[in-house]
Amino acid sequence: MKNINVLPSICYGGDYNPEQWPEEVWYEDAQLMQKAGVNLVSVGIFSWAKIEPQAGIFDFEWLDKVINILYDHGVHVNLSTATASTPAWFVRIYPDSLPVDENGTRLSFGSRQHYCPNHPHLIKHIKKLVRAIAEHYKDHPALKMWHVNNEYACHVSRCYCENCAQAFRKWLKKRYHTIDELNERWGTNFWGQRYNDWDEINPPRKTPTFVNPSQELDYYRFMNDSIFNLFLAEKEILRELTPDIPISTNFMASFKPLNYFQWAEEVDIVTWDSYPDPREGLPVNHAMMNDLMRSLRQGQPFLLMEQVTSHVNWRDINVPKPPGVMRLWSYATIGRGADGIMFFQWRQSRAGAEKFHGAMVSHSGDEHSRVYREVKELGHELSQLDGLVGARIKAEVAILFDWENWWAVELASKPHNKLSYIAIVEHYYRELYKRNIAVDFARPGDDLSKYKVVIAPLLYMIKEREDENLHRFVKNGGTLLMSFFSGIVDENDKVHLGGYPALLRDILGLCVEEFVPIAEGQSNLLQVGGETFECTTWADMIRLEGAQALAVYGEDWYAGHPAVTVHHFGQGKSVYIGTHPESRFVGQLLEKVLAEHHITPPLEVPAKVEVQRRYTENEEYLIIVNHNGHDVQLTLPKDRNYQNVLSGERLHGVKLTVKGIDVVVLKEDKN
Amino acid sequence: MKNINVLPSICYGGDYNPEQWPEEVWYEDAQLMQKAGVNLVSVGIFSWAKIEPQAGIFDFEWLDKVINILYDHGVHVNLSTATASTPAWFVRIYPDSLPVDENGTRLSFGSRQHYCPNHPHLIKHIKKLVRAIAEHYKDHPALKMWHVNNEYACHVSRCYCENCAQAFRKWLKKRYHTIDELNERWGTNFWGQRYNDWDEINPPRKTPTFVNPSQELDYYRFMNDSIFNLFLAEKEILRELTPDIPISTNFMASFKPLNYFQWAEEVDIVTWDSYPDPREGLPVNHAMMNDLMRSLRQGQPFLLMEQVTSHVNWRDINVPKPPGVMRLWSYATIGRGADGIMFFQWRQSRAGAEKFHGAMVSHSGDEHSRVYREVKELGHELSQLDGLVGARIKAEVAILFDWENWWAVELASKPHNKLSYIAIVEHYYRELYKRNIAVDFARPGDDLSKYKVVIAPLLYMIKEREDENLHRFVKNGGTLLMSFFSGIVDENDKVHLGGYPALLRDILGLCVEEFVPIAEGQSNLLQVGGETFECTTWADMIRLEGAQALAVYGEDWYAGHPAVTVHHFGQGKSVYIGTHPESRFVGQLLEKVLAEHHITPPLEVPAKVEVQRRYTENEEYLIIVNHNGHDVQLTLPKDRNYQNVLSGERLHGVKLTVKGIDVVVLKEDKN
Amino acid sequence: MKNINVLPSICYGGDYNPEQWPEEVWYEDAQLMQKAGVNLVSVGIFSWAKIEPQAGIFDFEWLDKVINILYDHGVHVNLSTATASTPAWFVRIYPDSLPVDENGTRLSFGSRQHYCPNHPHLIKHIKKLVRAIAEHYKDHPALKMWHVNNEYACHVSRCYCENCAQAFRKWLKKRYHTIDELNERWGTNFWGQRYNDWDEINPPRKTPTFVNPSQELDYYRFMNDSIFNLFLAEKEILRELTPDIPISTNFMASFKPLNYFQWAEEVDIVTWDSYPDPREGLPVNHAMMNDLMRSLRQGQPFLLMEQVTSHVNWRDINVPKPPGVMRLWSYATIGRGADGIMFFQWRQSRAGAEKFHGAMVSHSGDEHSRVYREVKELGHELSQLDGLVGARIKAEVAILFDWENWWAVELASKPHNKLSYIAIVEHYYRELYKRNIAVDFARPGDDLSKYKVVIAPLLYMIKEREDENLHRFVKNGGTLLMSFFSGIVDENDKVHLGGYPALLRDILGLCVEEFVPIAEGQSNLLQVGGETFECTTWADMIRLEGAQALAVYGEDWYAGHPAVTVHHFGQGKSVYIGTHPESRFVGQLLEKVLAEHHITPPLEVPAKVEVQRRYTENEEYLIIVNHNGHDVQLTLPKDRNYQNVLSGERLHGVKLTVKGIDVVVLKEDKN
Repeated sequence: MKNINVLPSICYGGDYNPEQWPEEVWYEDAQLMQKAGVNLVSVGIFSWAKIEPQAGIFDFEWLDKVINILYDHGVHVNLSTATASTPAWFVRIYPDSLPVDENGTRLSFGSRQHYCPNHPHLIKHIKKLVRAIAEHYKDHPALKMWHVNNEYACHVSRCYCENCAQAFRKWLKKRYHTIDELNERWGTNFWGQRYNDWDEINPPRKTPTFVNPSQELDYYRFMNDSIFNLFLAEKEILRELTPDIPISTNFMASFKPLNYFQWAEEVDIVTWDSYPDPREGLPVNHAMMNDLMRSLRQGQPFLLMEQVTSHVNWRDINVPKPPGVMRLWSYATIGRGADGIMFFQWRQSRAGAEKFHGAMVSHSGDEHSRVYREVKELGHELSQLDGLVGARIKAEVAILFDWENWWAVELASKPHNKLSYIAIVEHYYRELYKRNIAVDFARPGDDLSKYKVVIAPLLYMIKEREDENLHRFVKNGGTLLMSFFSGIVDENDKVHLGGYPALLRDILGLCVEEFVPIAEGQSNLLQVGGETFECTTWADMIRLEGAQALAVYGEDWYAGHPAVTVHHFGQGKSVYIGTHPESRFVGQLLEKVLAEHHITPPLEVPAKVEVQRRYTENEEYLIIVNHNGHDVQLTLPKDRNYQNVLSGERLHGVKLTVKGIDVVVLKEDKN
Repeated sequence: MKNINVLPSICYGGDYNPEQWPEEVWYEDAQLMQKAGVNLVSVGIFSWAKIEPQAGIFDFEWLDKVINILYDHGVHVNLSTATASTPAWFVRIYPDSLPVDENGTRLSFGSRQHYCPNHPHLIKHIKKLVRAIAEHYKDHPALKMWHVNNEYACHVSRCYCENCAQAFRKWLKKRYHTIDELNERWGTNFWGQRYNDWDEINPPRKTPTFVNPSQELDYYRFMNDSIFNLFLAEKEILRELTPDIPISTNFMASFKPLNYFQWAEEVDIVTWDSYPDPREGLPVNHAMMNDLMRSLRQGQPFLLMEQVTSHVNWRDINVPKPPGVMRLWSYATIGRGADGIMFFQWRQSRAGAEKFHGAMVSHSGDEHSRVYREVKELGHELSQLDGLVGARIKAEVAILFDWENWWAVELASKPHNKLSYIAIVEHYYRELYKRNIAVDFARPGDDLSKYKVVIAPLLYMIKEREDENLHRFVKNGGTLLMSFFSGIVDENDKVHLGGYPALLRDILGLCVEEFVPIAEGQSNLLQVGGETFECTTWADMIRLEGAQALAVYGEDWYAGHPAVTVHHFGQGKSVYIGTHPESRFVGQLLEKVLAEHHITPPLEVPAKVEVQRRYTENEEYLIIVNHNGHDVQLTLPKDRNYQNVLSGERLHGVKLTVKGIDVVVLKEDKN
Repeated sequence: MKNINVLPSICYGGDYNPEQWPEEVWYEDAQLMQKAGVNLVSVGIFSWAKIEPQAGIFDFEWLDKVINILYDHGVHVNLSTATASTPAWFVRIYPDSLPVDENGTRLSFGSRQHYCPNHPHLIKHIKKLVRAIAEHYKDHPALKMWHVNNEYACHVSRCYCENCAQAFRKWLKKRYHTIDELNERWGTNFWGQRYNDWDEINPPRKTPTFVNPSQELDYYRFMNDSIFNLFLAEKEILRELTPDIPISTNFMASFKPLNYFQWAEEVDIVTWDSYPDPREGLPVNHAMMNDLMRSLRQGQPFLLMEQVTSHVNWRDINVPKPPGVMRLWSYATIGRGADGIMFFQWRQSRAGAEKFHGAMVSHSGDEHSRVYREVKELGHELSQLDGLVGARIKAEVAILFDWENWWAVELASKPHNKLSYIAIVEHYYRELYKRNIAVDFARPGDDLSKYKVVIAPLLYMIKEREDENLHRFVKNGGTLLMSFFSGIVDENDKVHLGGYPALLRDILGLCVEEFVPIAEGQSNLLQVGGETFECTTWADMIRLEGAQALAVYGEDWYAGHPAVTVHHFGQGKSVYIGTHPESRFVGQLLEKVLAEHHITPPLEVPAKVEVQRRYTENEEYLIIVNHNGHDVQLTLPKDRNYQNVLSGERLHGVKLTVKGIDVVVLKEDKN
């Protein structure tokens, strides 16, 4: 997948909402942007009502003026299609375009994103609007990128209205062709749910008790597809009118309702919005999301489309990033593959629900505020990193990640109903993060041949041919690490019969005979030789069928039973982890596996120092981020020549000091 | 009430849902059943859509085949009337048959039990279906019992739709005759709620604040009756067509919405479903439910219609029963009066909301799994217990239990709004359980002459003539133990005026002047001579009027006031407990009372060993269940001759060892 | 504002609901009232359905009888207009008069206050009823006061129905005149919320995410006004027909939905209902509410219209007041300006949702109960306090309090979303309470010239001209104490631009550059010289612009930054508190400020002793309330002559003992 360079430099800027301000502020904004090194802003995201004040009447005058001012100050635009929220007039004409929740309550106008994705007139109006905007701006030299809609599904990821019911039936007919096939796939003989007719099927609205999980799962798929269709409709028009302008829509990383692997195939470049909570300390999840977002398009660099300079406003308590942390996390993002760092938003709103959300320019409008000073400094630094644009990361480890699995494994009525897929994935990811091991995310059906180690946490759903893909990977010499409750169901959430995990028993060399969820606050022990570790959450009762026990349970009625196993299969091997071990166990297990495959970090560094390597054709960059409050000393390899990109300094010696809450970018010339 | 023997042996089997499986599995199932000693299965519970695939078109071919295969393998059927869930076609024809919650949300199809009990067409369709099934199978030799519907009201115990509103008005008219009488009974002069017309009355839907409690209470009664009517309609047809086949519907023990004492009068045998949480340890509540279920039909043996072999799927975390525990709890159930042990379900579902609910045969279909092995062993053991069928229990202690009191005492706006009726009943029950004292449950209006001790925990509601019944019991020599907040209101939740508890002051010899609820986390002390105990929850301010203080409060502004009293009345006496004492106090108090009446356990045993005695005309059985993980030694009375029923061994000596997590069944020949 | 003397003595009595009782009880009630010293009861509050049993048919016969009986026993009436709950027949005729919640659920009849304030027929029926009552009773000698409706908005403070939507649009049109003005004031360019037409605007029903806060804020105003209009309509009729009878409606003190400062301008005398939870110990909030209620009409004495003798019934656990506490808190209320002490209710209801709410006469009807005895003793005591009627309090300290600020500061999407306005106001109030410093509450726009010290906790909203009022106060020599997050927005919740708090920066001599909310469970330190204090919740980053730091932060990245500042401005000064300091700090800070202004308590007393001074033209009263369980000794000033009003004793010496849970009322003759 080829790289998309929106600009020849690192993109820097943010969301810009000029319609909230009088015209004189636009000039002031453009000047402040120029001073801060801003080269790209996202404009028009909530401007539908302003661009099309009445149905069919378009007004571009104000936006022409804004874009021209920006362009005159060297600022390009990531132009929005303005479809993020339907205008009040649209809602008045089509009151049934407002979404309906599972209880039948129709939501109201007055916040944002108040539309049902399946309203028949919505898509018509969207197409008309997008065509008008694209026609008007297609040749404007400021236009560098399309920002389609905004954070699709953020608040309304599901609608349960009659329009959706009808669209759902159509979608099901297309998927299953006959009602008999649907009955079979959904297992409707259970609880007498058999359908005679498509018209009997409804969205999974509020029911007396657990709804059919196959129906629920298909509704995830259907809503994802419904919203995706809105995107595709916009994309088609934009591609037609501006074939050379990259098209994207901003993702929200670990956002459950949208299958971003599917979406990523249709954007030209991944862009995403990141809001880690500064109260949480080390931003491991943020790193994981960067790796996931980069992986969506097989390593192609992405843009961080939104982050905040200081604090958000939608948490209970909105603690700001301390001085330096915004810069630190920006570099951590670049280190994992970003070619752009942008913010929500440029100027802090005066009114509305986000007026206390941080911005690049605060309410005071003060150039000398801490925040604006940090913004300006970062802008100037990033302008020195042009060489990094397009640089890639090489990973030998992959974690399997699948949105459909996520939907399925968190459906109700499981043996353990407090499992968080993301949390368990992160449990394994964290040990790679702490060791600075580059990692990609991949789907279970993706080509895994470039990886040496593949980790499959909680891979509950194994779809057709995915089992063969895992067979192939291990047979060819890879190491597979798989957790408990993997390989249990097919794509319709129907159990693979024949002993868990039926399709993978040969690779794993075992059969799971029983699941023993562990009560909250309770734990068991893992015994490995003389050493013991804690394990919680789940204990599989494993019958060995070729595998060997690496660890056994230490307590309770199943003490002595195998808990973690290893099995040689073809040229590779499979490690099965039938419980949720403490981090220390996962770390030691991974260390052994990594060592077997000679997988190492770019540099040995102290704790809480991130170091990532990005490659261009001729150069290698090390992005070193010190999350510690104190200085750290690093040892550089003796046989390499580095340049400190920000200071320009060439490094001949082997010792390097990185200050507390500071970063160093090193460039190694391969020549 | 005469015993009903469904089979000449202990019934053993479970719910069987063959429609979820292809035909070849049916043969496999029948063979596995035979191997496991299964003699009865419940078939067709969710088969309405399969038996009547379109309105009025019936298909019994598949079910004939299933039942014949079963019968050929020695398995009889507890045939369901298949009315547990209306089919999709029914919902399409009658969308207003879906129930409505108190907020006006109409529930949707897609889980189960999605019907309003008062829909006028529901009962017509039910009757047609039940008649068709009964006509078809009335002479089949496999038919041993009718399983009407399934867990009535489990998910939809209340509907608030317009059909219900109309039916409620009719029900009220029948109960109160005039609107003036209703106004008087409901106290509608409070908050200006006076009705002029029956049409002004609605179900207690969502209101601005506390709804009229008398209205709420009558809605409990009305919904119970509405659902009961569905049962009676089925029963009438079944009795007509199969006068000799016992009819039952499976109860859920401490299920608040249905007044099972009322229902039990109309079933031929009580059957119930039991799902204790293995995380809770000693199954005291399970024992209490067994005793309650047995008491519903005055000691007639019952069937345990559903339990699980290992784990359920509908809790947050579903911990399985450890090895041996399923057997242990099965015997504990037999010890308290069961003539049958059955499971939900036979074969674990592949799809749907219960696919992770345990079963007799698991997903692996594996004969060698731990669970199937335990199932088979138990089946074979139980076949040796034919002599126990019909054996009864004799109790000299009764706990008063009343569903209408439960409804009333847990209505809102009480002095203490966190009182749990079941928890407080169990608080007293536990002390009898620990001492292996046989106990029945009885209604306050039941004949109490066969008991020596009657316990009345939280008997808030005393209805007409119940006070006289209690008078009679004490006057004739019984001992009554009554807790705080008893005797307060009449059947409409109106206070009995004249000082609490107005109708019982003479029996108790006191007046309760004030209620002093105790804040959570707070406690007071009970002083009895030099000894002190803790008490919580509630403190009555008691004025003695003939009673003597057994214990006084130790702290706070009411230190020294009487807390527990005793009063001699007629030939008996009343103990009043004006607070919620710790278990130790309850235990010591009961011990004294039991000693006075010479009430003893069947055998002296160590802690956590249950021993129950069942009697036939000529034999006595002792069922001994050791819940401890370790072995215990028992001493048998010297003057008796026992046979260990499972081993066949005759016991001449006086020492008996029962292993950890094991049972012994002893038979004593009276000859 | 002149005093209103309802009776020449302290009013004493309670709500009386004779329609709940048979006629013979009325005579018994009147006799018991007379014995207890009752001189005023509130009658008819929920009697609409009884007075007007069918639309247009009035029945006063029963009420005539009741009032005559009362009057014959020396009991006057506070006659209700009976509009607190619409009758069932009204709801049947106008089903759309039932209120609708934000999800669109229409509430049901069956509790109380089930009306939408904007239903067009409601006000017509109310007027007809009120006119009928007033015509009938206007010349009755028992009539001493009008009790309009009851606890307006208690349960239904907001309705979202179509009638409200229409009324809201009218209200907005009147307020903003043009849709452009509304768009500007509501900042609808944010999130594309621009309206073209008034008809597009709806109540802030459930939306996908945060609703427009300006819309939400105006809905608070609109609903307050809608309900206020109901009151004004009643008042107009009552004033016309009974120009000399005082009119009131009972307030609920810190009740957020109603702007009682606005309402108080239209009642003749403030009356309020007080239900502190005895579990909470020292009734600081109760004292604060007394001071707030007194302040609503600039110090005019008020009536405590409802309190309970013992316990309520609507909390989870309803702990009663221990013996003596009802009397204690009654005096505490008189000490802060009450001319009457009344209860809900006279006789405990037998049925309905409040039957376990305490009353003056309990279910037993027993004259000798603890509660009735305390009621009678208090009634007799209060009859000795005629001299106190009309006595006033002089305060030199004011706390600014503004309902509109309350609505705005607790809207969603703030930097810190767990701020409680009342809790933060009370944090400052408590330090004055503990020191027995008299304090008024005032609106930010009120005349502040009579105060020396003004405290502005969390005064987030500064409306037009309020900034000038604060300027004037400080310039003229006052001391202003202002907390963090003050002066931020205008009346539409739009930020005052130009550095926080833009309009007050000159008075305060600073600019707040950033808000740093502090996570829950976290804290920082305040350093003042060598001393340190804890601070939590919030830390402003302050840039000094003339002010001096009184305290700096002790920890985290902003250690050393100013946290509390002082600035001299004109003849006065401003103290700014940029965080939430622990009580000890607030106390010490206030002590310094009070000392500078020579503000002292009426008497130096030990902890937990309240002492308040009330003045008439010729006398001074000291009301001394000892909340301690033990006796305390006070020292009276040597140069004064006091009389113990209750004992009649003249006090010559300087030592006075007040018993535990007891009160002393001293009168000083100025002559």
